[in-house]
Amino acid sequence: MLPFDILEYQERLEKTKSKMNEKGIEVLLITDPANMNYLTGYDAWSFYVHQMVAIVIDEPQPFWLGRFQDANGAKATTWIYDGNVIAYPDYYVHSDTYHPMDFIGEILSQIGQGNRNVGVEMDNYYFSAKALERLKRAMPNATFKDGDLLVNHVRIVKSDQEIEYMNRAAVIADQAMFRGIDSIRAGVRECDVAATIYYYLISGTEEYGGGYPSIVPLLPSGKNSGIPHLTWTDRKYQEGDMALVELAGCYQRYHVPLARTVSIGQPSEKMNSLTSIVVEGVNEVLEAAKPGLTCGDLEEVWRKSIGRYGIEKEARLGYSVGLGYPPDWGEHTASIRKGDPTILKPNMTFHLIPALWFENYGIEITETFKITDKGSETFTKYPRELTVKHPYIFNQHEGEIS
Amino acid sequence: MLPFDILEYQERLEKTKSKMNEKGIEVLLITDPANMNYLTGYDAWSFYVHQMVAIVIDEPQPFWLGRFQDANGAKATTWIYDGNVIAYPDYYVHSDTYHPMDFIGEILSQIGQGNRNVGVEMDNYYFSAKALERLKRAMPNATFKDGDLLVNHVRIVKSDQEIEYMNRAAVIADQAMFRGIDSIRAGVRECDVAATIYYYLISGTEEYGGGYPSIVPLLPSGKNSGIPHLTWTDRKYQEGDMALVELAGCYQRYHVPLARTVSIGQPSEKMNSLTSIVVEGVNEVLEAAKPGLTCGDLEEVWRKSIGRYGIEKEARLGYSVGLGYPPDWGEHTASIRKGDPTILKPNMTFHLIPALWFENYGIEITETFKITDKGSETFTKYPRELTVKHPYIFNQHEGEIS
Repeated sequence: MLPFDILEYQERLEKTKSKMNEKGIEVLLITDPANMNYLTGYDAWSFYVHQMVAIVIDEPQPFWLGRFQDANGAKATTWIYDGNVIAYPDYYVHSDTYHPMDFIGEILSQIGQGNRNVGVEMDNYYFSAKALERLKRAMPNATFKDGDLLVNHVRIVKSDQEIEYMNRAAVIADQAMFRGIDSIRAGVRECDVAATIYYYLISGTEEYGGGYPSIVPLLPSGKNSGIPHLTWTDRKYQEGDMALVELAGCYQRYHVPLARTVSIGQPSEKMNSLTSIVVEGVNEVLEAAKPGLTCGDLEEVWRKSIGRYGIEKEARLGYSVGLGYPPDWGEHTASIRKGDPTILKPNMTFHLIPALWFENYGIEITETFKITDKGSETFTKYPRELTVKHPYIFNQHEGEIS
Repeated sequence: MLPFDILEYQERLEKTKSKMNEKGIEVLLITDPANMNYLTGYDAWSFYVHQMVAIVIDEPQPFWLGRFQDANGAKATTWIYDGNVIAYPDYYVHSDTYHPMDFIGEILSQIGQGNRNVGVEMDNYYFSAKALERLKRAMPNATFKDGDLLVNHVRIVKSDQEIEYMNRAAVIADQAMFRGIDSIRAGVRECDVAATIYYYLISGTEEYGGGYPSIVPLLPSGKNSGIPHLTWTDRKYQEGDMALVELAGCYQRYHVPLARTVSIGQPSEKMNSLTSIVVEGVNEVLEAAKPGLTCGDLEEVWRKSIGRYGIEKEARLGYSVGLGYPPDWGEHTASIRKGDPTILKPNMTFHLIPALWFENYGIEITETFKITDKGSETFTKYPRELTVKHPYIFNQHEGEIS
């Protein structure tokens, strides 16, 4: 079941241990499901309970520590020896008496790790304030260090196999965007467009299916098209609406996000000119991107480009992307924003999302790209433009599954 | 846009403040997206960045504190006055220098809350160990208390309007289960069944669409049917497989989970007899459930029921369910398990999930039910049985969208 060669996992583990050494961490407790997957292959929707992969600097095998009923999943989906899969009983789950970290801390002490330098992912969703408190109580002689994003930084440069999985995710993203936008027209409900997008994201292609994206498709429209993170409603699209579609194709948990803006009917002059500005900026950033520049340099290209039209953007312009679990497909390392010192290297991958948000409208035309030996290359093929839905075209499509 | 009357939100707020008083909490910082939604209506996929709703004991209005680009969403989806929507700039997002809690702590201090008793949701996914650390640093004179699950305990008894939303979620769950199971047959890929389920979960009915469930449909099959939390793959179902389907219909973020087990072809004697045992146990629990009993009492009914056949179950039998955001639709309060002292009251709602997991097979036949004045009532209507797919039946359905 492993999606990567065992040698690739071992290489990832070695890189992780090397960073642990740099930071003086002897035991790294990994609670980010993407990092758990990256190092071991573990893949299950079990992250709503406390669980972790523990990397011990002088042990060749990781440990998986989690809930009893998930232990078989750890054995089935990882390269970890069964003996290193350690499970806590169910009475630790969502209890006001017992906490899984009591158990995990005791086990770590029992296997001789109780007085070491222990790294924890301090800002991860799946490592709560209480998890740290209880772990400290269970391991009073350990020294806790911040190991947040340590593995994420290993993940930032992709292997060729990872790029191949992103290529597949891109095919799925293009298909879902095509089908989703095809289904958008006046009178159709947002939820039906979301359903269509989901259908194609997950059925994928004949050769391979898709995984669940870490963020649901985001479909703000009409007067809410200036509000980026709203999810769909039962509202029907109306003639004259702007409609945004942000989605990601996902394959083996690797994401390729893609966003486009749709005009239902003829767009205004303002939207047409904003589109030109955004597309020009995206083109310039993608043409400039190459190994050796920094993420901050890319932001400067964008800032100068839109600055020619008197526009400023408050939010960051993009972020490193790839492996992910809910609630995010971003890697939380490099951001394409002012001053980010990350030096671009081949096989780094980013979602360039130069969305512009105004009081009651917005525009999103985004690209996921990789750094190549000499420049950059986008993953998807969807036209980089404002999609205009003319009534005389979309009426022909009535009666499809959307 | 509010799904509930403003009076209902105010009642929830009053109940929350009453519990705050009991616990000596003057300022409650709410980071659980379900609790944020419950008290204010806030609904957006923005919980991948730090954000919160702050309840100040002597202020009539909550505060929303979050990312700048999400502030319009807070204004659009909540009953909070615009002046109480406070946003941090984008350079706080996923930065290794700035942390949103630096900003939030400073704002809370500026509005006079810096030296009060501050409750935080210690074990919530969206309140990391670092969030607490940075907040403490920014509010050195505050006294921090554990306010975890405080609002969840208010949520445990549903209003009639909440029950009505769960009724709608139930219709969606039944429909998605019917369509999903209809599409399961030998030769079909798991991902195509998942796609079909998602399509119907989200398109909903003609009167109302569905929301995204907090957990994706779980579809372990074949040799993995004993592993509860695996998600779908590209694997094709085979003649003789057992296939599990666990899903939830979702409406206005209210969930009604439902799981069934499918036999592709004639089931074994063992599966038939296990099914009888599980269905008998479920029937007995549902017949016994009524106001005044405890969750622990229900577990005892189940334990005795399956004990007659020499079976024991390691995991809890169910949990309180309703409003939720990823990664979980459970409320993390009452569990139907040994000794749980929660006293059943009308309009409490539970997912009764007496799944039995064995080394390489499992059975799930579950029901979401509410406590009524005199007993209990299930939300969905799907037949409580093992679904058997006979080849001569399912061949007739070829050519549908699945």
